[in-house]
Amino acid sequence: MTKIRVAVVGYGNVGRGVLAALKNNPDMEAVGVISRNPERVRKTFSGLPVMALADTDAWLEALRPDVAILCGGSKDDLPQQGPALCAKVNTVDSFDNHSRIPEYFKAMDAAASASGHVAVISTGWDPGIFSMERVVANAFIPGSRAYGFYGLGEAGGLSMGHSDALRTIPGVKDARQYTHAVSSAIEKVRAGENPEFSAGDMHTRECFVVLEDGADPEAVAQTIRTMPGYFAPYQTEIHFVTQEFLNEKCAGFPHDGLVVAAGVTGKGNPARIEYRCQWASNPEATANVLVAHARAVYRLAGEGKAGAFTILDIPPAYFSCHDRDTLLSSFM
Amino acid sequence: MTKIRVAVVGYGNVGRGVLAALKNNPDMEAVGVISRNPERVRKTFSGLPVMALADTDAWLEALRPDVAILCGGSKDDLPQQGPALCAKVNTVDSFDNHSRIPEYFKAMDAAASASGHVAVISTGWDPGIFSMERVVANAFIPGSRAYGFYGLGEAGGLSMGHSDALRTIPGVKDARQYTHAVSSAIEKVRAGENPEFSAGDMHTRECFVVLEDGADPEAVAQTIRTMPGYFAPYQTEIHFVTQEFLNEKCAGFPHDGLVVAAGVTGKGNPARIEYRCQWASNPEATANVLVAHARAVYRLAGEGKAGAFTILDIPPAYFSCHDRDTLLSSFM
Repeated sequence: MTKIRVAVVGYGNVGRGVLAALKNNPDMEAVGVISRNPERVRKTFSGLPVMALADTDAWLEALRPDVAILCGGSKDDLPQQGPALCAKVNTVDSFDNHSRIPEYFKAMDAAASASGHVAVISTGWDPGIFSMERVVANAFIPGSRAYGFYGLGEAGGLSMGHSDALRTIPGVKDARQYTHAVSSAIEKVRAGENPEFSAGDMHTRECFVVLEDGADPEAVAQTIRTMPGYFAPYQTEIHFVTQEFLNEKCAGFPHDGLVVAAGVTGKGNPARIEYRCQWASNPEATANVLVAHARAVYRLAGEGKAGAFTILDIPPAYFSCHDRDTLLSSFM
Repeated sequence: MTKIRVAVVGYGNVGRGVLAALKNNPDMEAVGVISRNPERVRKTFSGLPVMALADTDAWLEALRPDVAILCGGSKDDLPQQGPALCAKVNTVDSFDNHSRIPEYFKAMDAAASASGHVAVISTGWDPGIFSMERVVANAFIPGSRAYGFYGLGEAGGLSMGHSDALRTIPGVKDARQYTHAVSSAIEKVRAGENPEFSAGDMHTRECFVVLEDGADPEAVAQTIRTMPGYFAPYQTEIHFVTQEFLNEKCAGFPHDGLVVAAGVTGKGNPARIEYRCQWASNPEATANVLVAHARAVYRLAGEGKAGAFTILDIPPAYFSCHDRDTLLSSFM
């Protein structure tokens, strides 16, 4: 079997997750890691070529990837890397700034269409799986609104973005932020009320903060509680803890979520759809979804398609390693 | 706006559900009801042409449907009607005999391909949504197995097939059968054990039976408990009740289900996906999904596609009444 050749662009948590996920997908193989700083990657990683992101033509020539999985961040990396790379190779990425997806789609579609490549954007579990579930819930229960909740388990879900935000505060040495869903809000949606929520109605935030020596806890707490966007709109609980506590009790990247939509069929029969996922490792979850989409990219490209796509544009069978006969006999 | 013209073939529970669902989808309209027995339908239904199934060319000529939604049964109706009709018009159906789907797909694909029509087969919530969820769960968590459970709520899910089977037993005047999921089995799947189950490990069956005057309850109970396929493999609870009880307490067609798959990402981080749906009216649920698929049929046909398709072959956006800009800005 000819394997799908995948270049992994970026060696952060998601990039390492993609390398691990490719080992669980026997029809694909990693052919190299692409990094802004190959020297640093080589210190902890070996077994595959590690090449410099800047030398695009060199690594494309050397590695001949069918697909490049872009594992960079949505703020600084993808808006530049995405259009530049999909002009030269088929790509898939997890651009997750929801409000800027239309703009990013447009840039990627222009670059990929002009060069005849396929670029699947904004996939992972949200945006990604959850986007698909929102669309089908709305289509199968017209008039319903699909709501997303995060951190339903007791521990809540670790938010990298909010943890990073905490660490920018003067006096904060280290921190983790856990998001919790408000269960009474979920029950309102389940009851078919299609409620109007503000952000703070749906989630609360729990912060574990290690202070720098001599930092003032009151001042730090005040800064956290009033931080616009990140914490001001939410009920926020703050725990000051030791670095040892953080390392031991707040390890890993657990996250989980729920899409829920409720409405009626016919003349008023209640109907409800819920999609729930739970991941001990959030970056590995994103990585797994990216890898399944790389398979779809390969197939779309093989059909001569070009331009930008989202999960909404892809038939589910394209994600599967199984052939049509197996899908018809064992999955329908 | 030009509406998608839909002919509803069959006026049973699903057909009536389709007529109701079309009213909730403003981009589509019912143009007529097709029945083996138009006289009988006209006794309770008016407002649209009701035409004879046998006069296929006449109703196609008179109604000019873009899509025919086939609402007949999988045992006797669809194996004949399906190939005959998709040779003349685009179709969608809910053929739900899982083990015969490959064979039905082949027959529909041959007829639809030869005539240049689109035939979407075997959709509803299972097969249908659940098929899609099984495929994506397996693709996003490689190595996981997706399990289907039915009747998780306290009342359980009403099984029409099992209710019909009870009514064939001599001495049984009327009956309803409720399926119940075994919660300990669900917990085993959630724990990532990928267990091997027999049918009876996953579900139990609860029967509400009205006896004919003079029938022997012991004999009826024995016949139920030993009925191959339907009840013999399951723990089965039997209640003998009055017709009044049945009419009052066992009204409606509630059903619900769960797809659950658990496995790991990377080198062993637990991961779990669950899809749950609950319907106060099972036939209306099927009808809603059929109607969303009729929209997809119309779009596939508009692209010049032909042949048989399942939900696995259709991009999720094709089910939605929203355009790409709305999907990108509001659903991703």
